[in-house]
Amino acid sequence: MFKKVSIFGVGLIGGSFALALKRAGVVGQVFGVGRSATSLARAKELGIVDVASSSVEEAVRDADLILVAAPVAQTEAILASIEPFLQPDTIVTDAGSTKTDVVEAARKALGGKIAQFVPGHPIAGREQNGPDAAIVDLYVGKKTVITRLPENSASDVARVAAAWEQCGAIIHKLTPEEHDRVFASVSHLPHLLAYALVDDVARKPHADVLFQYAASGFRDFTRIAGSSPEMWRDISLANQAALLGELDAYMAQLVQLRELLAERNGKAIEAVYANAQRARQNWIKTIESAEQQNKQGGD
Amino acid sequence: MFKKVSIFGVGLIGGSFALALKRAGVVGQVFGVGRSATSLARAKELGIVDVASSSVEEAVRDADLILVAAPVAQTEAILASIEPFLQPDTIVTDAGSTKTDVVEAARKALGGKIAQFVPGHPIAGREQNGPDAAIVDLYVGKKTVITRLPENSASDVARVAAAWEQCGAIIHKLTPEEHDRVFASVSHLPHLLAYALVDDVARKPHADVLFQYAASGFRDFTRIAGSSPEMWRDISLANQAALLGELDAYMAQLVQLRELLAERNGKAIEAVYANAQRARQNWIKTIESAEQQNKQGGD
Repeated sequence: MFKKVSIFGVGLIGGSFALALKRAGVVGQVFGVGRSATSLARAKELGIVDVASSSVEEAVRDADLILVAAPVAQTEAILASIEPFLQPDTIVTDAGSTKTDVVEAARKALGGKIAQFVPGHPIAGREQNGPDAAIVDLYVGKKTVITRLPENSASDVARVAAAWEQCGAIIHKLTPEEHDRVFASVSHLPHLLAYALVDDVARKPHADVLFQYAASGFRDFTRIAGSSPEMWRDISLANQAALLGELDAYMAQLVQLRELLAERNGKAIEAVYANAQRARQNWIKTIESAEQQNKQGGD
Repeated sequence: MFKKVSIFGVGLIGGSFALALKRAGVVGQVFGVGRSATSLARAKELGIVDVASSSVEEAVRDADLILVAAPVAQTEAILASIEPFLQPDTIVTDAGSTKTDVVEAARKALGGKIAQFVPGHPIAGREQNGPDAAIVDLYVGKKTVITRLPENSASDVARVAAAWEQCGAIIHKLTPEEHDRVFASVSHLPHLLAYALVDDVARKPHADVLFQYAASGFRDFTRIAGSSPEMWRDISLANQAALLGELDAYMAQLVQLRELLAERNGKAIEAVYANAQRARQNWIKTIESAEQQNKQGGD
């Protein structure tokens, strides 16, 4: 049970967290804080937050839990604004898509109070943003990764985990470095590749003809290139080291495939394609059987 | 009106063509021919073909139109088997995903009868294959590209176009070379990239952890890596020249993006991402307004 939960950034992520905690009946007051008065007012109107204010001091005072749910590039500034008012019994967590840089920012901003910061990343999203996009079920059956720090107390980690579990999320634990390598591989790199392909096509002199013949395969492959450029610029920079590593591995793979294609080595090309198809089919089967189990468990 | 249409390969593509011509009431007899007796029997059972046979001679005799709807790598052998029986009043067309190599194969196989071959490519498909996957509506509202040869008569081209139009398709015309460059860019390259990414992830020592955290973005990006490895090996080899060109351009683009990331040039990275997002949004708008118009026209 939380008496007061304060949320920095009452958009899709923060707003859905608030709605889910309210439905679970585990929060006394949700306090919304942010830079946009419009978003705050809208969040209050929608019943996402009980109190909306631009005052960091008010937000931090007597809060049991603070969630920072703003773009990762703002994490350091927000935590620095929180620090002067932060009391020992308040836990701070975040929802950033990258973790190594967030931890670094938190260490700078919070200094001696770093033990109170438990980094997290809920793996959930929607195409829309802002308070109107917030939904109570966003986290149901989804993973939330907690990347605990050596300084964190077991009870603070458990309390953050419990909050996400009340939202319906399944808790996973990774180190910040593991987290960033994993998401560089399965999320950040695919985004970069999709952006690169559409940009490449769009800059060709006959781009209009190309787009005319692009069909459903192209549409699915490039869906993630419809995501916010600002957000993915920030993520790319925040996870630069891991992303460069994954990009290099992928480029080496393309160089190899190019060679096979140049020498018309059909057998080896088919082996790569078949390995990919098999791996993907196994992965999809695992997802589908997990979804099946979730459904059975939920009813 | 066609008295007799013969189809080499009564699977998804050939079978759907037959069903659509029958519904339109523009064909007297559909004659199915192929290597698999099981597929032929099934196609007969399903009412896709009126006659099923393994005899090429019977298939070609008195046919107005012959459609070769087999994997592109088999085109030359099939056309060579047709050639001895081919009469001057029969038109031959195909449904191959690549065109330069098909034209080359046709010139070898048909020699002096090349004028009778009008190459085509219906841009439609489904995940399933075989006669059971054939559906009457497969081509409705979809493009069929005709890549006419200098030797083709205008009336033969018009007759092939009319057959596809009877199936509901919209006719586009490109040269074989244009066709192959366009599809290398918007279809063949994305397939290669998706296969490469899944293979890359699957071969990492911690692949199981990676797949565990892969979410909907990864799922859509890699959907086309679930396609048939044999088919895409054939397409990659058949369109080797154009595909190498597109792959090189894409790799150059990745090298550039890598540099921007290494030097933390956020502004330039965002510009690439934003250009891609804008181009994709415009493309999607065009598709959606075309779909809207098709619907209005159809009702």
